[in-house]
Amino acid sequence: MKSFIKVAPDSHFPIQNLPYGVFSTSNEDNPRVGVAIGDYVLDLSILEEKGFFKEIIARENAVFNKSSLNSLMQLGRDSWVGVRKKVQKLLSEDEPQLRDDEEIRKQVLFPMKEVILHLPVEIGDYTDFYASKEHATNVGMMFRGKENALMPNWTYLPVGYHGRASSVILSGTSIRRPLGQIKLPNHSPIFRSTRQLDFELEMGCLIGVGNKRGEPIPIEEAEQHVFGMVLVNDWSARDIQSWEYQPLGPFLAKNFATSISPWVVPMEALEPFRVTGPIQDPKPLEYLEQSIPSSFNIQLEVYLRSKKMSAPKRICLSNYRYLYWSMAQQIAHHTIGGCDLNPGDLLATGTISGSEKDSRGCLLELTWRGKEPISLSEQEQREWLEDGDEVTMTGWCQGDGYRVGFGEVTGVIEPALDAEHVLQRKHQRI
Amino acid sequence: MKSFIKVAPDSHFPIQNLPYGVFSTSNEDNPRVGVAIGDYVLDLSILEEKGFFKEIIARENAVFNKSSLNSLMQLGRDSWVGVRKKVQKLLSEDEPQLRDDEEIRKQVLFPMKEVILHLPVEIGDYTDFYASKEHATNVGMMFRGKENALMPNWTYLPVGYHGRASSVILSGTSIRRPLGQIKLPNHSPIFRSTRQLDFELEMGCLIGVGNKRGEPIPIEEAEQHVFGMVLVNDWSARDIQSWEYQPLGPFLAKNFATSISPWVVPMEALEPFRVTGPIQDPKPLEYLEQSIPSSFNIQLEVYLRSKKMSAPKRICLSNYRYLYWSMAQQIAHHTIGGCDLNPGDLLATGTISGSEKDSRGCLLELTWRGKEPISLSEQEQREWLEDGDEVTMTGWCQGDGYRVGFGEVTGVIEPALDAEHVLQRKHQRI
Repeated sequence: MKSFIKVAPDSHFPIQNLPYGVFSTSNEDNPRVGVAIGDYVLDLSILEEKGFFKEIIARENAVFNKSSLNSLMQLGRDSWVGVRKKVQKLLSEDEPQLRDDEEIRKQVLFPMKEVILHLPVEIGDYTDFYASKEHATNVGMMFRGKENALMPNWTYLPVGYHGRASSVILSGTSIRRPLGQIKLPNHSPIFRSTRQLDFELEMGCLIGVGNKRGEPIPIEEAEQHVFGMVLVNDWSARDIQSWEYQPLGPFLAKNFATSISPWVVPMEALEPFRVTGPIQDPKPLEYLEQSIPSSFNIQLEVYLRSKKMSAPKRICLSNYRYLYWSMAQQIAHHTIGGCDLNPGDLLATGTISGSEKDSRGCLLELTWRGKEPISLSEQEQREWLEDGDEVTMTGWCQGDGYRVGFGEVTGVIEPALDAEHVLQRKHQRI
Repeated sequence: MKSFIKVAPDSHFPIQNLPYGVFSTSNEDNPRVGVAIGDYVLDLSILEEKGFFKEIIARENAVFNKSSLNSLMQLGRDSWVGVRKKVQKLLSEDEPQLRDDEEIRKQVLFPMKEVILHLPVEIGDYTDFYASKEHATNVGMMFRGKENALMPNWTYLPVGYHGRASSVILSGTSIRRPLGQIKLPNHSPIFRSTRQLDFELEMGCLIGVGNKRGEPIPIEEAEQHVFGMVLVNDWSARDIQSWEYQPLGPFLAKNFATSISPWVVPMEALEPFRVTGPIQDPKPLEYLEQSIPSSFNIQLEVYLRSKKMSAPKRICLSNYRYLYWSMAQQIAHHTIGGCDLNPGDLLATGTISGSEKDSRGCLLELTWRGKEPISLSEQEQREWLEDGDEVTMTGWCQGDGYRVGFGEVTGVIEPALDAEHVLQRKHQRI
């Protein structure tokens, strides 16, 4: 399958992908829904207005002239598939409707470098899992010692916790180093900025259609509820985390920022890359048993660039398929007690680490809690993130001559607020 | 201060209270904002339409003909105070405008027993704290033993975690007993319904105006961001919790349901009941230090009624003032790392227990994990909640001849789904 729009073989956005995003332009600043194709964005709101989707979406239910994908997501899988087929046809090299109509092409196709991208989804609730066995084992060893590394529950259920939905932000937003309580050995806790700022390489699925409260989603239906996937960087402050996290889990160590990539890749585009996940031993309980291959072969990379570096350096090479607990298992578990999922909910995987040292998905693991710094150049090494560092994650599925990619999620570290100034501000207000 | 509407001395809703809620009537089913006064609901949407609030809220910003309080909450404290003063004046015994106009009274006053109440707020994010020292100590002793009861961080920071916003439901909604993974000693985990279903007596504050991401709220400003308070029952499944909760905190044990009371009591109504909280030792870090009394004297009660009982029995008598960490400290801590709060966010306190045995705010503590059942009648006792049990929480501040009350939050336990049926359903769909 090919598009009349030229797409480079290493582009993330060929006609096989067609991810959804929300964008605006300098001429028209209302955010609206578009699809990425090569180096262009296709404006679905104008196509909808012109009646291109009228067999799929009734005019009174228009979903594309909106500032988020939520309206489209609520329509359900039949509509998602219908829209995707229609867009794929409109963009294909054999279809003259857009190809041969320069006038309409000018109205609906925008060079990607000229558009402004927005957070694509209004996040309802955000859940973060802990689905990588290698990550959970490594973190457990560092935080609790070798004997208590993997908790006894870990191999029986996909451990997860609720994150902060309001902290989910768009790729490119800068990350201010947080202040918080830090506990150093043999000292009372102090108030200062984190010295152990970290990234976490994750992916997330976005729920399209949810379930009613009290009605669990059977595992074999679980993927049908997913609209698409994004890259996720779950920024973390490890010194804040290790002091605060017991017994109720991470809180301020995580809720200052979680970045997601702007393009939501539909599940249909990932289908050719479905693979079997790791063998699960012990065998999961029946409500978590799945009959089809449950993972996807998505290559993942993390790049770091300091202020001094002209080009970023790759510091991690991982793969979504390393995850022990699948997306379907996460959804089936999440709802088994009656919890309702809703359109726009984000379910992230937790850090995706593999068994190789360079496949570890965060600095906590890569530097073994700062004990083994990684080298960035002859002049620079890193234990933790420093001000001005830029972290970029990317990921794609490699097809035969094309890539189904996720673009990137990126963010630069800004210096913390001055702790003294924050306290002074308090006194001024009294 | 008195209203022309007769209000009994033990009513929760005198003119000194005036809590906000969302209601509809059989004649007009659009949910809209009202205020409780005695046994009546005052319809603010009609008063707004008639121009009664035009000096406070511009007509184009109308906030009362809405299905949630969020629009009002976003206006900020000056508007909240302005509306409250206006409503207080309109309802006072000296003010003829409503008192002497039977026609308008018929349009705007509805007997409370005839209205349908709705969830008053669109919850953005939901955070649950763990602010009672007695509760944290008791739970810690049962889950981790006497030595590790109170974690070392507990006296330095208000421990909290993110809850599930979509699980927040209105008082009166029935609670289905959840299914989940249960781990019995010397057995592999099994899939069945919880046998340790519990309530948690909590209160919650609702954020009116939030803060920008990256800009902490100084503690002395914190209460200014709070629109009002409600009663909260954080239903919990203790057997699911004890198996799943390490290391990331409670998840399915809590996210099946959290009930809140329908009337939001404004902070202004609580001001006369401000009291000093417990002495804090060690002294909190500066960003958590507060110069004014930081608690409120709110008497709290829990009642339980089984299917066999004709009247409920009081099983807990507690008080908001027992909480170690104040609302202002919770807000200052929540935002100190840059986390943004937003209109509609719910911050719950965690279980409110005191030092007396009957002041413990959940069955886990009251029955000491089922070892010391409580007696309901000569025929019945309880270790945990059983199907058909109705749990009702209530709370009020006692003034001189009046009460500022929260009404109640109530819920009945429904039987679990049949676990076998849930698994069969899975197979039917394959």
